[in-house]
Amino acid sequence: MELWLHDKVEGQACDVKVLQVLHYEKSDFQEIAVVLTESYGKALVLNGAIQVTEKDEVFYHEMLVHVPMFTHPSPKRVLIIGGGDGGTAREVLKHPGVEKVTMVEIDKRVVEICKEFFPKISCALEDPRLEILYEDGVKYVKETKEKFDVALVDSTDPYDFAELLFSRDFFLSVSCILGEDGVCCSQTENPYIMGNVIRRVQGYLSELFKYHTLYWTVVPTYPGGLWTFSMGSKRVDPMNFRKDTAVETKIYSPHLHRAVLNFTLYEEV
Amino acid sequence: MELWLHDKVEGQACDVKVLQVLHYEKSDFQEIAVVLTESYGKALVLNGAIQVTEKDEVFYHEMLVHVPMFTHPSPKRVLIIGGGDGGTAREVLKHPGVEKVTMVEIDKRVVEICKEFFPKISCALEDPRLEILYEDGVKYVKETKEKFDVALVDSTDPYDFAELLFSRDFFLSVSCILGEDGVCCSQTENPYIMGNVIRRVQGYLSELFKYHTLYWTVVPTYPGGLWTFSMGSKRVDPMNFRKDTAVETKIYSPHLHRAVLNFTLYEEV
Repeated sequence: MELWLHDKVEGQACDVKVLQVLHYEKSDFQEIAVVLTESYGKALVLNGAIQVTEKDEVFYHEMLVHVPMFTHPSPKRVLIIGGGDGGTAREVLKHPGVEKVTMVEIDKRVVEICKEFFPKISCALEDPRLEILYEDGVKYVKETKEKFDVALVDSTDPYDFAELLFSRDFFLSVSCILGEDGVCCSQTENPYIMGNVIRRVQGYLSELFKYHTLYWTVVPTYPGGLWTFSMGSKRVDPMNFRKDTAVETKIYSPHLHRAVLNFTLYEEV
Repeated sequence: MELWLHDKVEGQACDVKVLQVLHYEKSDFQEIAVVLTESYGKALVLNGAIQVTEKDEVFYHEMLVHVPMFTHPSPKRVLIIGGGDGGTAREVLKHPGVEKVTMVEIDKRVVEICKEFFPKISCALEDPRLEILYEDGVKYVKETKEKFDVALVDSTDPYDFAELLFSRDFFLSVSCILGEDGVCCSQTENPYIMGNVIRRVQGYLSELFKYHTLYWTVVPTYPGGLWTFSMGSKRVDPMNFRKDTAVETKIYSPHLHRAVLNFTLYEEV
């Protein structure tokens, strides 16, 4: 018997061969599974969609985090919406100037399961600079009195409860809780199969921020592999980013930062 | 009815939704199809595996071609093994110093079909500097008396007649027909599902060339999206490449060249 995970988004799917299902449950919010894949190590699967795998997670987490973090001149207070696996927090906390990270994850079970099955990804979740709030990110950004330097939206696909994380209201709230050098960044899917998501989010960011940029990375276990992030910056041109060799990375580099910014090929689609 | 193309390589597959089959035939060498996909425009499919699509072909062709072409100090004579769709030749011929390109494609029907269905990819196939030989690439490199500056191996997956394009004998022949600044580059699959191919080819290149490098790109319609190229260079360090703004590209840039070189993550797999 062969087991394959079939992760389908619009006109494309990614199939990964599964050797073993290590965990399965239905939480209050979603179906959560941990599977052992043949080629990518363990994978976290939410509602049938791979979120992270052990082997390829750096392509996603390093690029979601370091492009906005190095764009901000001095990020001290960082907000993460979602990010339950801990990979985003781990990369943020590599930046020595960071004083406080607030992570707003709707589903406590995701965090608990990742602590158990993905120690290398979730390793920073016990950092004293990190506070985890188990609540709805949309509600949080609307109501909080806190201010942040950088806001990172590390969400699932724009369906169900994650849909509002791609709305104009949400990005408006985010821009209001950011300081004057504020930078925000959100994953915005594969450009060829979800170009409409990108166009919508880029539209909101262009209203709310001086600079709005699309950049790309590769995530081999997401449908289409090519993945995008949409970034808004209030005052600093993302091309004028800081270079800081104190932050150790495997994929991110100042060269990659420059090379992937201002991705426009999707506009031809 | 929904039609999906299921392109499977080891522990991963890429499924693309197909709207229409535009062409289908069995040539002397393989099954050739042209399909219209929902998200990537038209796609050339050989033996069930997507080779190129209209929307994402630049990620593959620009990176296969420009990294080695800018590594060589002055490429005038270029050899392409495979490359029947014409995309590789198109990128090579953008370099103003190129005097002659020899393309050795085993299957004439691939070239004919691409001329008919993919005019933007095959547009350089009539260039007077290009000669197309319809023969076996392995045999050609073993027997030719010609000398080349750059050799590009634009092959299908390492099965059937393409298998020998990943052999030690083949790379030995290639190194013998290259000049003293010679550079060769071959596609070497997805690092997480075909890491053995990379390790083997990197081994051959390390014997035969002063510099051997692995670098990556993304091809959204290949299984795993993340794709690698293995490059050997006889005298020039690939990090000391030329920058030439006369060559217009959509993805390739000196920054991307630097960022993707010396990819080592696969070694941990």
